[in-house]
Amino acid sequence: MSNAKLEAILNPGRMLADGIPFMDYNNARQLDDVSQWFGYWTDTANRYEELGEQALTQGNLVSAGEWLWHASLSFHYAQFLWFHEPTLRESGQRSKSEMYKRAAPYLQSIAERVEIVFEGNIIPGYLRLPVGPGPHPCVVLIGGLESTKEESYHFENMCVRRGLATFAFDGPGQGEMFFDVKIQPDFERYSSAVLDYLETRTEIDSQRFGVLGRSLGGHYALRSVALDHRFAVCVAWGGFVNMSDWDEMPTHVHDGFAYLTGIASEGEAGTFLSDALDLGDLIAEITCPTYVLQGANDRIFSKYQTDLLASAIDENDHCQLFVESAGDHCCHNMANIVRPRMVDWLSNSLVR
Amino acid sequence: MSNAKLEAILNPGRMLADGIPFMDYNNARQLDDVSQWFGYWTDTANRYEELGEQALTQGNLVSAGEWLWHASLSFHYAQFLWFHEPTLRESGQRSKSEMYKRAAPYLQSIAERVEIVFEGNIIPGYLRLPVGPGPHPCVVLIGGLESTKEESYHFENMCVRRGLATFAFDGPGQGEMFFDVKIQPDFERYSSAVLDYLETRTEIDSQRFGVLGRSLGGHYALRSVALDHRFAVCVAWGGFVNMSDWDEMPTHVHDGFAYLTGIASEGEAGTFLSDALDLGDLIAEITCPTYVLQGANDRIFSKYQTDLLASAIDENDHCQLFVESAGDHCCHNMANIVRPRMVDWLSNSLVR
Repeated sequence: MSNAKLEAILNPGRMLADGIPFMDYNNARQLDDVSQWFGYWTDTANRYEELGEQALTQGNLVSAGEWLWHASLSFHYAQFLWFHEPTLRESGQRSKSEMYKRAAPYLQSIAERVEIVFEGNIIPGYLRLPVGPGPHPCVVLIGGLESTKEESYHFENMCVRRGLATFAFDGPGQGEMFFDVKIQPDFERYSSAVLDYLETRTEIDSQRFGVLGRSLGGHYALRSVALDHRFAVCVAWGGFVNMSDWDEMPTHVHDGFAYLTGIASEGEAGTFLSDALDLGDLIAEITCPTYVLQGANDRIFSKYQTDLLASAIDENDHCQLFVESAGDHCCHNMANIVRPRMVDWLSNSLVR
Repeated sequence: MSNAKLEAILNPGRMLADGIPFMDYNNARQLDDVSQWFGYWTDTANRYEELGEQALTQGNLVSAGEWLWHASLSFHYAQFLWFHEPTLRESGQRSKSEMYKRAAPYLQSIAERVEIVFEGNIIPGYLRLPVGPGPHPCVVLIGGLESTKEESYHFENMCVRRGLATFAFDGPGQGEMFFDVKIQPDFERYSSAVLDYLETRTEIDSQRFGVLGRSLGGHYALRSVALDHRFAVCVAWGGFVNMSDWDEMPTHVHDGFAYLTGIASEGEAGTFLSDALDLGDLIAEITCPTYVLQGANDRIFSKYQTDLLASAIDENDHCQLFVESAGDHCCHNMANIVRPRMVDWLSNSLVR
């Protein structure tokens, strides 16, 4: 196993901004071989689980919540690109969800677990509320190809501190929902089901729904607001228009997409995905203020996709495209600049 | 300039745990020459200042506070070991204080600037309060050789979330106070002056004062509680007993100590310091619960000092020594483990 392979799987900008401690990242960087990756992060997760359990026993609830969340995040990175060993990946995925579920009551603000029944399946999500009297505006957070509702804790904290409630959920192909429903061509039906639910919550102001989607979730967010005009505002953070440059995407992205369709043949998966993941002319249908962020150095959804986004956005006055010249995929390498900006933009649109 | 020299000045565990974004650390790691260090961090600080000012103009106060604090922290690292160019160091120190002063009203919780007049000089500090009705217990935070009241923002957040107010201040030789008063043999008189002030604050419960000192501040904290029994609890985080192993300390630590005495000759500074910084038998005088944390791999205050601490602490039932076998100076390389533990210990002692 070459260092290059380990470097490819390591993504320090993303990992550290989402909450991985430097020490854990640094130890991972020094692994001899990428085959140690899953075990390393699982061991790390187990240690945090133990710390979390000790803290619970001692009544140290703030630390308990944070350590169990660290356990969840460590399990996340154990399995996030582990498509070649599905049994391990699935056990890592389940452990990740379980750790977050245990952390949730102790997070500040509390993450309230919600299970929305939709067409015989469950859409799992977490609602977090800002301090103070509601009803609050609420931002629906959509994960990506392998990112899920458990990863946005730090991002949610930024929202909550600025007066925005958050609802992060797993849709088709994501996190817990993957076990029941693989990638679908109609993600917007799931985000609309989330709004149907949030409309029943008196703490939330249903005139002030926002959505923010990350990576593949950026694609889903654009699709969602184009087809459900209850969303008052949208952020697409590192998305794409369609799969027409499928052949140029990195192998691990291919593998991930194919895995999450549940289709064994990569060729068939590719055909399914090119139909399922295509915005077509949907950007023209967007009627809410929409902020699209791309990194000029994105190696996953490349300049080709940014150009496709640019030309569609150019025709729609509701949409603005920001391309960070130094940014990588989702501009994770400059997270501390772009993340507060996106949250401020949402907050300026929804809170005031 | 060798990589070794840059590696010596870089301290990722500390820097990242105190709030430096990974991107900024990583760019610093890739500097060609340590001579670029001051300029690099100053440029970084200037960018954050600009972001902070923009955010203020736009009314984005949470981001404004955080970005101005990032500016402060970047100025901190610009100058922290820059003893060989005093004019630059002093300008960096002043800019650091100025940026934090501007950030303070926008931090959550607000950092209230306090200026305590003491013997014709000003002891500058910041008071932060937890949410909810007081009076609150309060932890007095003491910085070290080159660490000051502006650096503990993340640590303070951990305290405040657990119901502890914090008061971070600069004493003799530290931060803003350095310009008026160099290192003194009686630091405890300054921490007692802080308590005199805090006793006048109705939001603070003067029966529940704690103190936590970091590095040289750990030495000061032990000295302070030995000589002022108003402190109900103490944490010494990476301290030492005396200067008897002065000759074995790293050059940059020597240089720092000498600089902060204001004495030009290093030999004379050393003599002054061995008199001024010596706990003698003071640990025997401690009557409050005291938590002492040392890292077994500390290269600044070495095993020799840990052994001195151990033998004094062994004679005093109020004190407990914890030595982390994998820990470096202040266990910064395992910050995300030891910091919540120290704060939980303070909180368990003072909040309940």
